[in-house]
Amino acid sequence: MFRIIKKHSKSKARLGLITTSHGVIHTPAFFPVATKATVKTLTPEDIKKIGFEAILSNTYHLYLQPGHKIIKKLGGLHKFMNWQGPVATDSGGFQVFSLGFGLEHKVGKIMKWGQSPKNGDCPHKTKLAKVDNNGVNFTSHIDGSLHRFTPESSIKIQEDLGADIIFAFDECTSPLADYDYTKKSMERTHQWAKRCLRVKNNNHQLLFGIVQGGLFKDLRQESARFIGSLPFDGFGIGGSFGKKEMKQALNWIIPYLPENKPRHLLGIGYLNDVKEAIKLGIDLFDCVYPTRLARHGVFLTNQGELNIIKSGYKTDKKPIMKNCSCYVCQNYTRAYLHHLFKAKEILGHRLATFHNLWFMFQYMDKIRKNIKDNEEI
Amino acid sequence: MFRIIKKHSKSKARLGLITTSHGVIHTPAFFPVATKATVKTLTPEDIKKIGFEAILSNTYHLYLQPGHKIIKKLGGLHKFMNWQGPVATDSGGFQVFSLGFGLEHKVGKIMKWGQSPKNGDCPHKTKLAKVDNNGVNFTSHIDGSLHRFTPESSIKIQEDLGADIIFAFDECTSPLADYDYTKKSMERTHQWAKRCLRVKNNNHQLLFGIVQGGLFKDLRQESARFIGSLPFDGFGIGGSFGKKEMKQALNWIIPYLPENKPRHLLGIGYLNDVKEAIKLGIDLFDCVYPTRLARHGVFLTNQGELNIIKSGYKTDKKPIMKNCSCYVCQNYTRAYLHHLFKAKEILGHRLATFHNLWFMFQYMDKIRKNIKDNEEI
Repeated sequence: MFRIIKKHSKSKARLGLITTSHGVIHTPAFFPVATKATVKTLTPEDIKKIGFEAILSNTYHLYLQPGHKIIKKLGGLHKFMNWQGPVATDSGGFQVFSLGFGLEHKVGKIMKWGQSPKNGDCPHKTKLAKVDNNGVNFTSHIDGSLHRFTPESSIKIQEDLGADIIFAFDECTSPLADYDYTKKSMERTHQWAKRCLRVKNNNHQLLFGIVQGGLFKDLRQESARFIGSLPFDGFGIGGSFGKKEMKQALNWIIPYLPENKPRHLLGIGYLNDVKEAIKLGIDLFDCVYPTRLARHGVFLTNQGELNIIKSGYKTDKKPIMKNCSCYVCQNYTRAYLHHLFKAKEILGHRLATFHNLWFMFQYMDKIRKNIKDNEEI
Repeated sequence: MFRIIKKHSKSKARLGLITTSHGVIHTPAFFPVATKATVKTLTPEDIKKIGFEAILSNTYHLYLQPGHKIIKKLGGLHKFMNWQGPVATDSGGFQVFSLGFGLEHKVGKIMKWGQSPKNGDCPHKTKLAKVDNNGVNFTSHIDGSLHRFTPESSIKIQEDLGADIIFAFDECTSPLADYDYTKKSMERTHQWAKRCLRVKNNNHQLLFGIVQGGLFKDLRQESARFIGSLPFDGFGIGGSFGKKEMKQALNWIIPYLPENKPRHLLGIGYLNDVKEAIKLGIDLFDCVYPTRLARHGVFLTNQGELNIIKSGYKTDKKPIMKNCSCYVCQNYTRAYLHHLFKAKEILGHRLATFHNLWFMFQYMDKIRKNIKDNEEI
């Protein structure tokens, strides 16, 4: 399922190949996020044209809308959304718990980009998730209805969705949780990991276990050792942490993970974080960063982020990025893109998403090339 | 500039060819509307792939945002929006006046599709346009700023935009206006038509005059005779009328228009209206109907309009339309499109717009074929 093609001589990075029922994934790879069975604004053909081999969808969102049973009835996620390549689905745990602790502690990975709830901003008055040893009760963010996920139901839902890579159900703890809670939660995640392995039924799906343990060295090591010892097809690293903490955590964790299995750093996508994590031995990433930025009019460039809404671009005839060979940079000026965003035209979102994912793919491609050529990453 | 290729033996329809600086237009033709220099959600490549040769943009909207001077500075509308084919721009008159009478009388072509302002719904407390013999003062719907259009400024703006087909500035009267006002307004439009011809400077642009006269036979005939006698390159028929009134008005008008010049029925796009108008000798159409419907989840089919948001489509594996060869019908189920609209995913708007314009192009293509083959239209 996973083959290491080459190891980088200057870091712990590796070039690999994951084989799935729907094709191969060259690693290190970034998965564009198709939260609700669509990479927002783009078609599967667009994603393919950009170069991506695989995408990641969110179990939590698809479970709520349209529902995994409907997707199963319609032939599974690939057929439903007309994407023929590999798909990963997360376990739903991150969304369920980040709705919980995000609202409690005002933190969370999905709130990094300007969504942190301020006093009075939050539409939900109470915590949305309540965990017990057997699973978690949660409230739908759509209509307030009550639901329950267990390790068994998460796997069942992911089987119905039919993704090629699925994840064990875990409790994603708040970075503000104390040692005792984080330890208790980690142990629960370990028990859940075993339960997920036990109920997994479909041999066409690769099941990844998830390492937790918060910001505590001994817990991260213990979790990596425990999860790493289980017969998973690969490993996710969960949690919510800052840039510095991320490197530290990866240094603690990776030595305990088996060399010959792929490692997915969940929800991370800032360019530098991706690069640093690859150097430490991470193979897979998924993040809404490039697509979410796009919808806010922010374009990724090799000079940094470019906010096209700024009035300075009103008559700027240049493309977003010099030497970018993407469709957007080849055909449109900053002035036109500025106009689209000012006029709230959907085409602006579409073109920005296309460019940002193109940029992201090129960024990853360069890293893969550098590993291959033993150049600095 | 306009050549009639064939006349239909069973009606007054004709097959024609308009030659512009940016290519030819096979008539009868429908122009997708690119209000603010974009056919909402689609790229120029999409429009071309569907088959359309020409589009229409709105002078009023582009004048306000980003401004004609900016578009001129950026090389004109074609270059600005990356559309290499023919472009038409309207005169701005319709929007300016429909903002006026639409708010006064609660009617207007642009309010046909669920936008009619109800008591309390309308953000504007006062009439937005005030006409005098020399031009019209109006208030921007965007920021309430004050502006003035005259026949001369409308032509100047359209020259700056650089469209291939431009329209004379006219007063579009409310269908509820009385005989005296409609007559006075029509006479003003006639004077403005002469002024537009006088100031028109650019020989690469085709200038179309506009026939007004409301719902009054003698006024429509007088207007058609007067405008038809002026050296315009083609003719627009303006006004706001119901289905029955439209046929009647065309029967009054068309005998007075020169045979060898193209005739554009402004703002009309319902399928049957288009067909009836072609049979009476109309060559050109523009309308937001297919694209606006799309954004509301309504797909055009040969069985009528299909509202994909209805819950009956939740698990429907069929394409929108049997035997439709468009990208959407070839690749997606009604269930997926239903999901996209329920989940408020932009891709839904994009796919619906693509299908509806595809349907519209095929509809026109069939009519052109029928004229060519002397079959019933």
